[in-house]
Amino acid sequence: MNVLWVFAHPEQASLSGVLRDEGVRALTEAGHAVRMSDLYAMKWKAVVDRDDFPEETSPRLEVASASRRAYDAGTLSADIRAEHEKLDWADTVVLQFPLWWYGMPAILKGWVDRVFVKGFAYGVTDPSDGRTLRYGEGMLAGKRALVVLTAGSREPAFGPRGINGQLDLALFPLLHGTLWYTGMSVLPPVAIYGADRMSAEALDAAASLVRSKVLSAATDRPLPYRHQNHGDYDGDLVLRPAHAPGETGLAIHYRAGDR
Amino acid sequence: MNVLWVFAHPEQASLSGVLRDEGVRALTEAGHAVRMSDLYAMKWKAVVDRDDFPEETSPRLEVASASRRAYDAGTLSADIRAEHEKLDWADTVVLQFPLWWYGMPAILKGWVDRVFVKGFAYGVTDPSDGRTLRYGEGMLAGKRALVVLTAGSREPAFGPRGINGQLDLALFPLLHGTLWYTGMSVLPPVAIYGADRMSAEALDAAASLVRSKVLSAATDRPLPYRHQNHGDYDGDLVLRPAHAPGETGLAIHYRAGDR
Repeated sequence: MNVLWVFAHPEQASLSGVLRDEGVRALTEAGHAVRMSDLYAMKWKAVVDRDDFPEETSPRLEVASASRRAYDAGTLSADIRAEHEKLDWADTVVLQFPLWWYGMPAILKGWVDRVFVKGFAYGVTDPSDGRTLRYGEGMLAGKRALVVLTAGSREPAFGPRGINGQLDLALFPLLHGTLWYTGMSVLPPVAIYGADRMSAEALDAAASLVRSKVLSAATDRPLPYRHQNHGDYDGDLVLRPAHAPGETGLAIHYRAGDR
Repeated sequence: MNVLWVFAHPEQASLSGVLRDEGVRALTEAGHAVRMSDLYAMKWKAVVDRDDFPEETSPRLEVASASRRAYDAGTLSADIRAEHEKLDWADTVVLQFPLWWYGMPAILKGWVDRVFVKGFAYGVTDPSDGRTLRYGEGMLAGKRALVVLTAGSREPAFGPRGINGQLDLALFPLLHGTLWYTGMSVLPPVAIYGADRMSAEALDAAASLVRSKVLSAATDRPLPYRHQNHGDYDGDLVLRPAHAPGETGLAIHYRAGDR
């Protein structure tokens, strides 16, 4: 595998840092190539603004069209282009972060906001038939995405009836709305719970889990999200009545029989 | 009402800017007080790091405990303390943003990450019985929160069977996991769809909707999320079998009969 590991923790000497080092070492020892985007260490700029599009001259900034123009012209800021080059190289993308307010830390959300520009990660159409390529198709299709996170909560609170929402509900905007949207195959997320009070035994188990899941990323079964263009949705992008009839909520976004 | 309006769009001359101005004017004309946190205009620092806790001396940064110490000592960085003062003043909080990757722009996620520190927005216990105050209780209880967003998609794609997930599914980490977690009453979000291709008539309708919803924020019915401490959950914070028996997913997080 060619693995791009995107890491978003402010402290190298953290549980997250230990787990990252374990995962990277396991991959390297198994002969895989790993490149790292350590966002805090890179002092990654988190906020989309006009500086992302240095040649943009429109007095009124319209982000989507400005990013599209800059992407097509090759004039996005250099830090964004460097991430595109890494993503082009990678067949597997690991996003590792501490879960803050049930989502990515701002620095990682800003990596998504700034790197996943129009023309690169969305707003792409098939030249042969003009259909929009998203949700299972797109420029990043063929790559696999694995989320690795640490959370203070204990596991039951993220279970199917836990107060925080089951993990794939809390992560729906990232797993489905971002990674699957761009075309990537999304692996079941790896979560380390109770991260703020971890025994030595629990740390060993967590490291072992992370090593195992990154090593099997190429072969593990992705989440069975529905494709936009495989006939499940009507012209308004509403699920046809034949699929999960009468149902709503999270479950309908998985293919029946594959849940 | 005392309204804190948090605004997260990079362009003042945007649809978002127009809608903000309309909402603020309606509130002001009706005699309400409005304070604005215009995050781009403030050049809000989006990323949690050691500079948030200028007196922190631990060689290894542990964000939750460092923020707790700094909050208790009154030594959080001045920009965070200013937001706390605004939140203390407000009885109503409006979060307005363009929906980017089914969530807040990084600058606004970073407002949450940095302002909602331990001791202020979470990690609070009741001194009388030691129970943790969150999900409907906490320091921000008694305030109301209203999300106002713009999205490029058309409305059906965010409907109950839409491909993007119904809106309260896509926003679950924010509405439930952030705003309700801190104790705030969460109003149904206001979404302006088709925001990238809006006719003059649609803009009028959108402005009217925003004006109306901010004016009724004090009396509209909040989303009926379950309280952590009202007996619905067991000691592992798992929903007791008597509530929504056998069900999982988004719906179980709403009180039965109130959905």
